[in-house]
Amino acid sequence: MNVTETNVEWQEKSKSVRKEGLYYKRKMRQFGLTSLDRFVMYHPNPSDGMKSGVTYAHRDMEKIADAMVNGDPWAVVSGLNPSGPLHLGHLQIFKEMLWMQKNGAEVFIPITNDESYVVNKTDSLSRGREIAYNEIIPSIVSMGFDEKKTHIFVDSDYTEIYNAAMDVSKHMTLNTAKNVFGFDFSKEVQNPGTFFYRSAVQVAQILLPQYQEFGGPKPTVIPVGIDQHPYIVLARNVAKKMGMIPPAELSVKFLQNLDGAGKMSASRPESAVFLTDNVDLSYKKILGSYTGGLSSSEDQSKLGGVPESCPIYSITQFHLQNHLDLKEKCSSGKVLCGDCKSNTASQLRDYLTQIKKNVSGVGSYDGFMLKTPLTSIRNKYGG
Amino acid sequence: MNVTETNVEWQEKSKSVRKEGLYYKRKMRQFGLTSLDRFVMYHPNPSDGMKSGVTYAHRDMEKIADAMVNGDPWAVVSGLNPSGPLHLGHLQIFKEMLWMQKNGAEVFIPITNDESYVVNKTDSLSRGREIAYNEIIPSIVSMGFDEKKTHIFVDSDYTEIYNAAMDVSKHMTLNTAKNVFGFDFSKEVQNPGTFFYRSAVQVAQILLPQYQEFGGPKPTVIPVGIDQHPYIVLARNVAKKMGMIPPAELSVKFLQNLDGAGKMSASRPESAVFLTDNVDLSYKKILGSYTGGLSSSEDQSKLGGVPESCPIYSITQFHLQNHLDLKEKCSSGKVLCGDCKSNTASQLRDYLTQIKKNVSGVGSYDGFMLKTPLTSIRNKYGG
Repeated sequence: MNVTETNVEWQEKSKSVRKEGLYYKRKMRQFGLTSLDRFVMYHPNPSDGMKSGVTYAHRDMEKIADAMVNGDPWAVVSGLNPSGPLHLGHLQIFKEMLWMQKNGAEVFIPITNDESYVVNKTDSLSRGREIAYNEIIPSIVSMGFDEKKTHIFVDSDYTEIYNAAMDVSKHMTLNTAKNVFGFDFSKEVQNPGTFFYRSAVQVAQILLPQYQEFGGPKPTVIPVGIDQHPYIVLARNVAKKMGMIPPAELSVKFLQNLDGAGKMSASRPESAVFLTDNVDLSYKKILGSYTGGLSSSEDQSKLGGVPESCPIYSITQFHLQNHLDLKEKCSSGKVLCGDCKSNTASQLRDYLTQIKKNVSGVGSYDGFMLKTPLTSIRNKYGG
Repeated sequence: MNVTETNVEWQEKSKSVRKEGLYYKRKMRQFGLTSLDRFVMYHPNPSDGMKSGVTYAHRDMEKIADAMVNGDPWAVVSGLNPSGPLHLGHLQIFKEMLWMQKNGAEVFIPITNDESYVVNKTDSLSRGREIAYNEIIPSIVSMGFDEKKTHIFVDSDYTEIYNAAMDVSKHMTLNTAKNVFGFDFSKEVQNPGTFFYRSAVQVAQILLPQYQEFGGPKPTVIPVGIDQHPYIVLARNVAKKMGMIPPAELSVKFLQNLDGAGKMSASRPESAVFLTDNVDLSYKKILGSYTGGLSSSEDQSKLGGVPESCPIYSITQFHLQNHLDLKEKCSSGKVLCGDCKSNTASQLRDYLTQIKKNVSGVGSYDGFMLKTPLTSIRNKYGG
């Protein structure tokens, strides 16, 4: 391999990083999101994700900041559809939620097996339910959430969500939904369940903390990937019509997949690291990962790697120690991929071992499960 | 008023009857429904509605007849949205269901306050719920249903229906729904809740008796007005895909409204007779009703009235005694509207008095309420 080829490789990776940076900037402008810099500057102890730039943009976090300062009630809602166990990408959202709980938030976590089923990610509601109870919920609970301020629910078991969904659906039209998502339902959505989930149920979950049972209207933030932005727009529209506070949005970057193609996803298990992976398997996955390095170690020593394009660096930035140090060493060519991989794999092995230990210590998590009937809708709500 | 004018009046009313007859014939042909004549001929004791022609057409009742003869399990499902108390029109469906129960059917009655709410017939889920529990369910229970074989549910309280709705929704596409109803959702349906209700929830209710909890696939019949036909088509499509038996349809005619304009409807309370009406009010409503008679009693004595266009005759045919006798006397001009009205009003007063007495004797109806969790969907169903 000659220097020209190496240069091309370096240039390609650097270009993809610039493209990604532009993508996030463009989305922020398009969606009316603001950088988190000021929030991070003023908060005495921002979250790790905020400090490392993984959590990078927001809308309306001022309301949350006020609630934190004044000690007023506020809430955070985020969850996932249970088509597989948690991976490192999901974990970031829950770490952010844990930080929020320590800063006063009531935490709501919907595990949406109805979504998994209707969008064909599982073959039954029961499959998603099994994954939720056996794999996902123990992992979340083990992170150290406070039972008194955490409300986890699996949609097929907390069917009260249906009442909230019907309730909010009255405050949206098919056209609102169409405009927000920008697609033609009859082509993009396969069945009535998917359509209902993506409009009414999703919004019901976002607004749930603002129902009377949970203390009524309050600032609420939704930490999510940028792809979930339309749901928050829809929920903000509905909140205004229902006398609730439009929820804030907090954007969290995607963790890169180990194969270098997009975000870490449960649908490509070989290139994601799951919390339930055997630690040796996770070690092997890291060693076999795509990186931001170059084919020639000689050239990489001269030109440096491109850490921002590297899933290994991404894992360090999201979950491990001293990512700025690694970034500097990689960019300057002081550390090459082999060493970096085995170092990261070792750190990650310890990290996952600790998580497994925590999970094994989780006994009954029944106290975390939301069971509150929505009597304000069934009995009292006057439309 | 001269004879020509009277003739015009008589001709108009007769014409409307012929038009209505043609309407039902056309709908039967269009929808593939068959006359009930053979069923009535072979059944040792058909229902009053079948004998009087109020229940007039069907699809697939052969399966039900077989189940009756063989003593196999079968079910009937029909309900209503609770935007007001039961009127005489609703009652006909429940009388038909009671007859079916006596002939072996398991009875399922969804009271769909989710529907009332999303289609703007009530201003909250709770309003429909109140009407359901206070006014509708006691009326139904008082008719003499067998607690062991009757399952009534209010959607907002039996939220398990949401799991069934998501389950069935996987087996229909937006296009199926669109083709069956023949309308453009974005124009005709106001919100995602209405769309979901009219496709997935409605079908879930129709197929509910065929879930494992209730003994699995079995012949099921849906007695309804002809306007509900599309839901049955949709449910039949889904049933085939889910290994269930496509439900049979039994068409019941609409009871005419007292103002002579269309079917009796809770949305025009002044021209419907409700089971909860004070008996004196019901008497007055009958006396003030539109009829199939003529403006001149002299002409009516000669030409006769047009009973098939008359709500008073319709009430007799649906609920009282000797409708054939009345029909003959009215058509031949032997009885005029004044006498007929007071006679019918008296009979109806007795009829409603008896119903009120029965309703007042209803204690707790908790044993009639469906509470069965759909564990076959949540735990076992494999899609």
